[in-house]
Amino acid sequence: MNAAAPPQSLHSYRTGIDPAWIDYNGHLRDAYYGLIVSYAIDDFMDHVGVDAAYRTRTRCTLYTLEMHLHYLHEVKDTDQLDVATAVLDADAKRIHVGCRLTCPRVKGALATADLLLMHVQQGDVPAGAPFPDDIAQRLQSLKLPAEASAAWGPRSHTIEIKRRARPGS
Amino acid sequence: MNAAAPPQSLHSYRTGIDPAWIDYNGHLRDAYYGLIVSYAIDDFMDHVGVDAAYRTRTRCTLYTLEMHLHYLHEVKDTDQLDVATAVLDADAKRIHVGCRLTCPRVKGALATADLLLMHVQQGDVPAGAPFPDDIAQRLQSLKLPAEASAAWGPRSHTIEIKRRARPGS
Repeated sequence: MNAAAPPQSLHSYRTGIDPAWIDYNGHLRDAYYGLIVSYAIDDFMDHVGVDAAYRTRTRCTLYTLEMHLHYLHEVKDTDQLDVATAVLDADAKRIHVGCRLTCPRVKGALATADLLLMHVQQGDVPAGAPFPDDIAQRLQSLKLPAEASAAWGPRSHTIEIKRRARPGS
Repeated sequence: MNAAAPPQSLHSYRTGIDPAWIDYNGHLRDAYYGLIVSYAIDDFMDHVGVDAAYRTRTRCTLYTLEMHLHYLHEVKDTDQLDVATAVLDADAKRIHVGCRLTCPRVKGALATADLLLMHVQQGDVPAGAPFPDDIAQRLQSLKLPAEASAAWGPRSHTIEIKRRARPGS
Protein backbone atom coordinates (compact mmCIF):
# COMPACT_ATOMS: atom_id res chain seq x y z
CA MET A 1 0.00 0.00 0.00
CA ASN A 2 1.10 3.55 -0.72
CA ALA A 3 1.61 5.61 2.45
CA ALA A 4 -0.54 8.46 1.07
CA ALA A 5 -4.28 7.87 1.43
CA PRO A 6 -5.86 7.38 -1.97
CA PRO A 7 -9.20 9.24 -2.09
CA GLN A 8 -10.95 6.01 -3.08
CA SER A 9 -10.17 4.61 0.38
CA LEU A 10 -13.03 6.77 1.66
CA HIS A 11 -16.43 5.31 0.93
CA SER A 12 -19.01 7.98 0.05
CA TYR A 13 -22.76 8.00 0.76
CA ARG A 14 -25.14 10.83 -0.18
CA THR A 15 -28.51 11.77 1.27
CA GLY A 16 -31.00 14.61 1.51
CA ILE A 17 -32.82 15.52 4.74
CA ASP A 18 -36.31 14.20 5.48
CA PRO A 19 -38.35 17.20 6.79
CA ALA A 20 -39.63 14.90 9.59
CA TRP A 21 -36.03 14.84 10.93
CA ILE A 22 -36.11 18.60 11.80
CA ASP A 23 -36.87 19.30 15.47
CA TYR A 24 -38.33 22.24 17.45
CA ASN A 25 -34.94 23.98 17.27
CA GLY A 26 -35.34 24.30 13.47
CA HIS A 27 -32.45 21.97 12.63
CA LEU A 28 -31.69 18.26 12.22
CA ARG A 29 -32.45 16.45 15.51
CA ASP A 30 -29.28 15.01 17.08
CA ALA A 31 -30.43 11.38 16.71
CA TYR A 32 -30.98 11.74 12.96
CA TYR A 33 -27.30 12.51 12.40
CA GLY A 34 -26.93 9.01 13.86
CA LEU A 35 -29.54 7.59 11.48
CA ILE A 36 -27.72 9.10 8.49
CA VAL A 37 -24.47 7.55 9.78
CA SER A 38 -26.30 4.21 10.26
CA TYR A 39 -27.50 4.26 6.63
CA ALA A 40 -23.98 5.20 5.47
CA ILE A 41 -22.64 2.17 7.37
CA ASP A 42 -25.22 -0.08 5.64
CA ASP A 43 -23.89 1.24 2.33
CA PHE A 44 -20.30 0.68 3.50
CA MET A 45 -21.21 -2.91 4.52
CA ASP A 46 -22.42 -3.57 0.95
CA HIS A 47 -19.13 -2.08 -0.28
CA VAL A 48 -16.95 -4.44 1.78
CA GLY A 49 -19.07 -7.53 1.13
CA VAL A 50 -21.20 -7.82 4.30
CA ASP A 51 -24.30 -7.41 2.14
CA ALA A 52 -27.78 -9.00 2.24
CA ALA A 53 -26.68 -12.09 0.26
CA TYR A 54 -23.68 -12.59 2.59
CA ARG A 55 -25.87 -12.17 5.68
CA THR A 56 -28.41 -14.72 4.39
CA ARG A 57 -25.70 -17.24 3.39
CA THR A 58 -23.58 -17.03 6.56
CA ARG A 59 -26.00 -15.66 9.20
CA CYS A 60 -23.16 -13.23 9.93
CA THR A 61 -23.63 -9.48 10.14
CA LEU A 62 -22.19 -6.40 11.89
CA TYR A 63 -23.38 -5.24 15.33
CA THR A 64 -22.60 -1.75 16.60
CA LEU A 65 -20.84 -1.83 19.98
CA GLU A 66 -20.36 1.93 20.34
CA MET A 67 -21.15 5.13 18.47
CA HIS A 68 -19.75 8.55 19.36
CA LEU A 69 -21.07 11.61 17.53
CA HIS A 70 -19.54 15.10 17.48
CA TYR A 71 -22.01 17.83 16.44
CA LEU A 72 -20.12 20.70 14.81
CA HIS A 73 -22.71 22.60 12.71
CA GLU A 74 -26.48 22.78 12.40
CA VAL A 75 -27.98 20.92 9.42
CA LYS A 76 -31.01 22.40 7.63
CA ASP A 77 -33.76 20.60 5.71
CA THR A 78 -32.41 21.91 2.37
CA ASP A 79 -28.93 20.44 2.86
CA GLN A 80 -27.53 17.62 0.72
CA LEU A 81 -25.14 15.61 2.84
CA ASP A 82 -22.09 13.61 1.89
CA VAL A 83 -20.89 11.00 4.38
CA ALA A 84 -17.29 9.84 3.94
CA THR A 85 -16.52 6.59 5.77
CA ALA A 86 -12.95 5.61 6.63
CA VAL A 87 -11.60 2.41 8.16
CA LEU A 88 -9.54 3.73 11.09
CA ASP A 89 -8.62 0.28 12.42
CA ALA A 90 -9.66 -3.36 12.06
CA ASP A 91 -8.76 -6.67 13.66
CA ALA A 92 -10.05 -10.25 13.20
CA LYS A 93 -13.63 -9.44 14.32
CA ARG A 94 -13.91 -5.68 14.73
CA ILE A 95 -13.84 -2.52 12.65
CA HIS A 96 -13.33 1.00 13.94
CA VAL A 97 -14.83 3.33 11.33
CA GLY A 98 -14.95 7.10 11.18
CA CYS A 99 -17.67 9.05 9.37
CA ARG A 100 -17.41 12.68 8.33
CA LEU A 101 -20.56 14.56 7.29
CA THR A 102 -20.19 17.52 4.94
CA CYS A 103 -22.38 19.68 2.69
CA PRO A 104 -21.57 22.39 0.13
CA ARG A 105 -23.10 25.17 2.34
CA VAL A 106 -20.61 24.76 5.19
CA LYS A 107 -16.81 24.70 5.17
CA GLY A 108 -15.41 21.77 7.13
CA ALA A 109 -17.29 18.90 8.74
CA LEU A 110 -20.89 19.24 9.95
CA ALA A 111 -20.36 16.30 12.27
CA THR A 112 -18.08 13.33 12.77
CA ALA A 113 -18.81 9.89 14.15
CA ASP A 114 -16.70 7.03 15.45
CA LEU A 115 -18.22 3.54 15.49
CA LEU A 116 -16.92 0.26 16.82
CA LEU A 117 -18.52 -2.61 14.85
CA MET A 118 -18.31 -6.33 15.54
CA HIS A 119 -18.74 -9.19 13.08
CA VAL A 120 -21.39 -11.43 14.72
CA GLN A 121 -22.89 -14.80 13.82
CA GLN A 122 -26.56 -14.69 14.70
CA GLY A 123 -28.39 -17.67 16.26
CA ASP A 124 -29.88 -18.53 19.61
CA VAL A 125 -26.92 -16.74 21.18
CA PRO A 126 -25.25 -14.24 18.82
CA ALA A 127 -21.46 -14.52 19.07
CA GLY A 128 -18.50 -12.62 17.67
CA ALA A 129 -16.92 -14.41 14.67
CA PRO A 130 -13.75 -13.75 12.61
CA PHE A 131 -14.23 -12.13 9.20
CA PRO A 132 -13.67 -14.48 6.24
CA ASP A 133 -10.27 -13.93 4.58
CA ASP A 134 -11.55 -11.94 1.58
CA ILE A 135 -13.41 -9.40 3.73
CA ALA A 136 -10.54 -9.21 6.25
CA GLN A 137 -8.13 -8.43 3.39
CA ARG A 138 -10.48 -5.82 1.93
CA LEU A 139 -10.73 -4.09 5.33
CA GLN A 140 -6.93 -4.04 5.75
CA SER A 141 -6.53 -2.59 2.25
CA LEU A 142 -9.06 0.15 3.07
CA LYS A 143 -7.41 1.08 6.36
CA LEU A 144 -6.49 4.75 6.43
CA PRO A 145 -2.70 5.36 6.50
CA ALA A 146 -1.40 6.52 9.91
CA GLU A 147 -0.95 10.16 8.86
CA ALA A 148 -4.48 10.48 7.44
CA SER A 149 -5.88 8.62 10.44
CA ALA A 150 -4.16 11.01 12.85
CA ALA A 151 -5.60 14.01 10.96
CA TRP A 152 -9.14 12.59 11.05
CA GLY A 153 -11.27 14.34 13.64
CA PRO A 154 -12.60 15.33 16.01
CA ARG A 155 -12.17 11.74 17.14
CA SER A 156 -13.85 9.97 19.99
CA HIS A 157 -12.64 10.85 23.45
CA THR A 158 -14.09 10.82 26.97
CA ILE A 159 -17.09 13.15 27.22
CA GLU A 160 -16.63 15.53 30.14
CA ILE A 161 -17.05 19.19 31.05
CA LYS A 162 -13.53 20.58 30.95
CA ARG A 163 -12.95 23.57 33.24
CA ARG A 164 -10.35 26.22 32.57
CA ALA A 165 -7.78 26.66 35.28
CA ARG A 166 -8.60 29.85 37.21
CA PRO A 167 -5.90 32.55 37.49
CA GLY A 168 -3.87 31.95 40.62
CA SER A 169 -5.11 28.37 41.06
CA MET B 1 -27.85 17.44 49.83
CA ASN B 2 -27.58 13.96 51.23
CA ALA B 3 -24.47 12.11 49.99
CA ALA B 4 -26.59 9.08 48.98
CA ALA B 5 -28.32 9.49 45.62
CA PRO B 6 -32.07 9.77 46.17
CA PRO B 7 -33.89 7.72 43.48
CA GLN B 8 -35.86 10.84 42.49
CA SER B 9 -32.60 12.42 41.22
CA LEU B 10 -32.96 10.16 38.17
CA HIS B 11 -35.51 11.39 35.69
CA SER B 12 -37.48 8.54 34.09
CA TYR B 13 -38.94 8.31 30.57
CA ARG B 14 -40.85 5.31 29.18
CA THR B 15 -41.40 4.22 25.60
CA GLY B 16 -42.38 1.23 23.48
CA ILE B 17 -40.61 0.32 20.23
CA ASP B 18 -41.97 1.45 16.85
CA PRO B 19 -41.79 -1.63 14.53
CA ALA B 20 -40.27 0.68 11.87
CA TRP B 21 -37.21 1.00 14.14
CA ILE B 22 -36.30 -2.70 13.72
CA ASP B 23 -33.60 -3.34 11.11
CA TYR B 24 -32.56 -6.30 8.91
CA ASN B 25 -30.75 -7.83 11.90
CA GLY B 26 -34.14 -8.28 13.65
CA HIS B 27 -33.40 -5.82 16.46
CA LEU B 28 -33.57 -2.11 17.19
CA ARG B 29 -31.34 -0.24 14.70
CA ASP B 30 -28.38 1.47 16.44
CA ALA B 31 -29.55 5.00 15.56
CA TYR B 32 -32.97 4.49 17.16
CA TYR B 33 -31.39 3.92 20.56
CA GLY B 34 -30.17 7.48 19.97
CA LEU B 35 -33.68 8.66 19.03
CA ILE B 36 -35.10 7.17 22.24
CA VAL B 37 -32.35 8.96 24.19
CA SER B 38 -33.14 12.17 22.29
CA TYR B 39 -36.84 11.94 23.27
CA ALA B 40 -35.85 11.19 26.88
CA ILE B 41 -33.71 14.35 26.87
CA ASP B 42 -36.70 16.38 25.58
CA ASP B 43 -38.67 15.04 28.55
CA PHE B 44 -35.77 15.86 30.88
CA MET B 45 -35.64 19.42 29.46
CA ASP B 46 -39.32 19.89 30.37
CA HIS B 47 -38.48 18.56 33.84
CA VAL B 48 -35.70 21.11 34.46
CA GLY B 49 -37.61 24.04 32.93
CA VAL B 50 -36.11 24.29 29.42
CA ASP B 51 -39.59 23.62 28.00
CA ALA B 52 -41.47 25.00 24.99
CA ALA B 53 -42.74 28.09 26.89
CA TYR B 54 -39.19 28.85 28.10
CA ARG B 55 -37.76 28.40 24.61
CA THR B 56 -40.37 30.76 23.08
CA ARG B 57 -39.90 33.40 25.82
CA THR B 58 -36.08 33.42 25.88
CA ARG B 59 -35.09 32.00 22.46
CA CYS B 60 -32.79 29.76 24.51
CA THR B 61 -32.64 25.99 24.12
CA LEU B 62 -30.20 23.09 24.48
CA TYR B 63 -27.90 21.98 21.65
CA THR B 64 -26.20 18.59 21.73
CA LEU B 65 -22.41 18.89 21.36
CA GLU B 66 -21.62 15.18 21.69
CA MET B 67 -23.43 11.87 22.15
CA HIS B 68 -21.69 8.59 22.96
CA LEU B 69 -23.76 5.39 22.95
CA HIS B 70 -22.76 2.00 24.37
CA TYR B 71 -24.79 -0.93 22.98
CA LEU B 72 -24.96 -3.73 25.55
CA HIS B 73 -28.00 -5.83 24.58
CA GLU B 74 -30.30 -6.27 21.60
CA VAL B 75 -33.73 -4.61 21.90
CA LYS B 76 -36.78 -6.32 20.39
CA ASP B 77 -39.99 -4.78 19.10
CA THR B 78 -41.99 -6.11 22.08
CA ASP B 79 -39.77 -4.41 24.69
CA GLN B 80 -40.98 -1.58 26.92
CA LEU B 81 -38.01 0.64 27.70
CA ASP B 82 -37.29 2.80 30.69
CA VAL B 83 -34.70 5.56 30.26
CA ALA B 84 -33.19 6.92 33.48
CA THR B 85 -31.44 10.26 33.01
CA ALA B 86 -28.85 11.51 35.50
CA VAL B 87 -27.03 14.83 35.69
CA LEU B 88 -23.39 13.73 35.85
CA ASP B 89 -21.99 17.29 35.78
CA ALA B 90 -23.06 20.84 34.99
CA ASP B 91 -21.44 24.25 34.75
CA ALA B 92 -22.76 27.71 33.81
CA LYS B 93 -23.71 26.74 30.23
CA ARG B 94 -23.29 22.98 29.90
CA ILE B 95 -24.79 19.75 31.20
CA HIS B 96 -23.21 16.31 31.03
CA VAL B 97 -26.07 13.82 31.27
CA GLY B 98 -26.03 10.05 31.39
CA CYS B 99 -28.91 7.88 30.17
CA ARG B 100 -29.40 4.23 31.07
CA LEU B 101 -31.87 2.12 29.07
CA THR B 102 -33.46 -0.88 30.76
CA CYS B 103 -36.41 -3.24 30.23
CA PRO B 104 -37.94 -5.99 32.41
CA ARG B 105 -36.75 -8.77 30.01
CA VAL B 106 -33.03 -8.11 30.53
CA LYS B 107 -30.99 -7.82 33.71
CA GLY B 108 -28.74 -4.76 33.70
CA ALA B 109 -28.60 -1.95 31.17
CA LEU B 110 -29.53 -2.47 27.49
CA ALA B 111 -27.48 0.57 26.59
CA THR B 112 -26.01 3.69 28.12
CA ALA B 113 -25.46 7.13 26.63
CA ASP B 114 -23.41 10.16 27.60
CA LEU B 115 -24.43 13.53 26.18
CA LEU B 116 -22.80 16.94 26.42
CA LEU B 117 -25.50 19.62 26.06
CA MET B 118 -25.03 23.38 25.75
CA HIS B 119 -27.52 26.13 26.62
CA VAL B 120 -27.71 28.25 23.45
CA GLN B 121 -29.48 31.49 22.56
CA GLN B 122 -30.74 31.17 19.01
CA GLY B 123 -30.62 34.08 16.55
CA ASP B 124 -28.66 34.97 13.42
CA VAL B 125 -25.64 33.42 15.12
CA PRO B 126 -26.56 30.93 17.88
CA ALA B 127 -24.31 31.48 20.92
CA GLY B 128 -23.73 29.71 24.22
CA ALA B 129 -25.50 31.49 27.11
CA PRO B 130 -25.48 30.95 30.90
CA PHE B 131 -28.49 29.21 32.43
CA PRO B 132 -30.80 31.48 34.43
CA ASP B 133 -30.32 31.09 38.21
CA ASP B 134 -33.38 28.92 38.85
CA ILE B 135 -32.44 26.34 36.19
CA ALA B 136 -28.77 26.41 37.22
CA GLN B 137 -29.79 25.68 40.84
CA ARG B 138 -32.14 22.89 39.75
CA LEU B 139 -29.31 21.27 37.75
CA GLN B 140 -26.92 21.46 40.69
CA SER B 141 -29.53 19.93 42.98
CA LEU B 142 -30.05 17.07 40.50
CA LYS B 143 -26.33 16.35 40.13
CA LEU B 144 -25.55 12.75 40.98
CA PRO B 145 -23.40 12.38 44.13
CA ALA B 146 -19.77 11.43 43.41
CA GLU B 147 -20.16 7.80 44.45
CA ALA B 148 -23.25 7.20 42.31
CA SER B 149 -21.62 9.08 39.43
CA ALA B 150 -18.51 6.89 39.64
CA ALA B 151 -20.68 3.74 39.57
CA TRP B 152 -22.62 4.93 36.49
CA GLY B 153 -21.52 3.14 33.36
CA PRO B 154 -20.19 2.13 31.01
CA ARG B 155 -19.23 5.79 30.63
CA SER B 156 -17.87 7.56 27.60
CA HIS B 157 -14.26 6.86 26.75
CA THR B 158 -12.10 6.93 23.62
CA ILE B 159 -13.38 4.43 21.04
CA GLU B 160 -10.56 2.19 19.91
CA ILE B 161 -9.77 -1.46 19.19
CA LYS B 162 -7.87 -2.65 22.23
CA ARG B 163 -5.47 -5.50 21.57
CA ARG B 164 -4.45 -8.03 24.19
CA ALA B 165 -0.75 -8.24 24.90
CA ARG B 166 0.58 -11.41 23.24
CA PRO B 167 2.37 -13.95 25.42
CA GLY B 168 6.10 -13.22 25.37
CA SER B 169 5.67 -9.72 23.95
